Amino acid sequence: MTVRLKSLSLEWHREGEDCSLRILDQTLLPHEEKWIEVCSPEQMVLEIKRLAVRGAPLIGVAAAFSLAMARKADAKKEIAARLREARPTAVNLMNAMDRMLAVPSDRWIAEAEAIYREDCDLCDRIALRGAKKIRDGMRILTHCNTGGLATAGVGTALGAIRKAHEQGKKIHVYVDETRPLLQGARLTAWELRKLGIPYTLICDNMAGFLMAQKKIDLVMVGADRIAVNGDFANKIGTFTVAVLAKHHGIPFYALAPRTTDDPNCKDGSAIHIEERAADEVRAGKAPTDAPAYNPAFDVTPRSLINGILFENEER
Amino acid sequence: MTVRLKSLSLEWHREGEDCSLRILDQTLLPHEEKWIEVCSPEQMVLEIKRLAVRGAPLIGVAAAFSLAMARKADAKKEIAARLREARPTAVNLMNAMDRMLAVPSDRWIAEAEAIYREDCDLCDRIALRGAKKIRDGMRILTHCNTGGLATAGVGTALGAIRKAHEQGKKIHVYVDETRPLLQGARLTAWELRKLGIPYTLICDNMAGFLMAQKKIDLVMVGADRIAVNGDFANKIGTFTVAVLAKHHGIPFYALAPRTTDDPNCKDGSAIHIEERAADEVRAGKAPTDAPAYNPAFDVTPRSLINGILFENEER
Repeated sequence: MTVRLKSLSLEWHREGEDCSLRILDQTLLPHEEKWIEVCSPEQMVLEIKRLAVRGAPLIGVAAAFSLAMARKADAKKEIAARLREARPTAVNLMNAMDRMLAVPSDRWIAEAEAIYREDCDLCDRIALRGAKKIRDGMRILTHCNTGGLATAGVGTALGAIRKAHEQGKKIHVYVDETRPLLQGARLTAWELRKLGIPYTLICDNMAGFLMAQKKIDLVMVGADRIAVNGDFANKIGTFTVAVLAKHHGIPFYALAPRTTDDPNCKDGSAIHIEERAADEVRAGKAPTDAPAYNPAFDVTPRSLINGILFENEER
Repeated sequence: MTVRLKSLSLEWHREGEDCSLRILDQTLLPHEEKWIEVCSPEQMVLEIKRLAVRGAPLIGVAAAFSLAMARKADAKKEIAARLREARPTAVNLMNAMDRMLAVPSDRWIAEAEAIYREDCDLCDRIALRGAKKIRDGMRILTHCNTGGLATAGVGTALGAIRKAHEQGKKIHVYVDETRPLLQGARLTAWELRKLGIPYTLICDNMAGFLMAQKKIDLVMVGADRIAVNGDFANKIGTFTVAVLAKHHGIPFYALAPRTTDDPNCKDGSAIHIEERAADEVRAGKAPTDAPAYNPAFDVTPRSLINGILFENEER
């Protein structure tokens, strides 16, 4: 039996029990498209740490496949533990490892393939729900990367944009570059270019001026963690876009799988925000000792936005 | 008679009629502080074009000094015309050339020195008015560069921050990096470091999150052109900061000399916004053919802010 599962940035190929796994090295995008063979969980840990594989759902899928390749190894639990530690804040990675460990290792291949297929299915359902909000002619602003490079499927917010395009709607996408790591400039621009969807790249501080000029009709972003009251954490800069959209009366939706819900956070104030290294902000341009603040995420109150689109409901 | 006029980025030295002019090459900041001797208006045109000299008031002063060095040349009007064309949108440059040409060339040295001293005086008056708005303990957000690198004096918004610091007020400055050209990260951070004023560098998309965390008490920015109704153009991203400040109830002031008033613009909609090259937005990170939008300025409605501080009034 031959199984080939191929997404924008991951390829799983299996002939019976003979498996191979390749990933697209996202650190080289958009200038180079280089696929890397991943032969072990140990290697996957390194690829995740150096951001060759990124995007919470994709990390879970990729880690599960790499664990399946070690199904005959000793010390399986220790291997899974090392995979978890590769990105401790990625909730999908934890879920994927929990699922794998809950079944006997001779079923790990099937389980990893199921995790892959379920992620594709989730993306399709979220994206189709999102696409219904997109009307012909709309100009849509998005932030960060929420497409095929972040998931095994079409993505969430960017997936909705892709579905709308495939439905024949004429749309234009404005892409926030998303400082400091430039996921918009590097990854979302690359995806849109590949999909043939018209887009324009902007600096994050230009979105407000576009709105003032009535050039934005809709905002769609992802979500990394959603509190019980609907406040949500997402890539730094999302909150500012939400304030701007509210000020201009522009509809704003967050798109995410239900697994993003965090029942332990009553509201946004309970969401812990990870801070990253100052060097990412300095970017080699500021004084080398410049004090810098670098929160990876911010929190957007539910009251600022129109809704959160899940695979099975709009909330 | 010896005259030595030295600002943060310009030095004029004269023994009788024997003049020399040096500028700090701002393209090398913050990593290198290199002074360049400027010997002619022709060279000044090049230095302005390559942004070694920048900041509208400073450009006017520097151009006037360089013209004074050519006071015995033929074709004086043509030389002045070439200086004007070095940065056609800088209103201060036009004013400086008009003033120089209005007096006989044997008085050009005195006129250029007067332009320098008047710019210092204007900065002091604007900065002192601004410093009155700054209370002990305040955390102030600023955007772009409005200090000693942009003027012959202490600057406008950054000048007010400097005066407050010199008055002994304990303050902390949050510096927007100011994409795409990073005047905040490169220049404002360098100035604050030199002045010993505590500061923190942030990406432009982080200011909103800081406000939500109640870490910003006041916003101060410059202005490039002010319409009759008080709407004003300033560096791209200013409008977004103003919307965020309004949303959070944080006081917001623009600081500028009265020469920034444009009686030909009834309101903000009449202000022409210059667009710059897409490559500045791509910054070598996006796909090389990525379509990009790069407005150099945006327009902030007067209704969003608390006031505009001039040398002789608050409006």
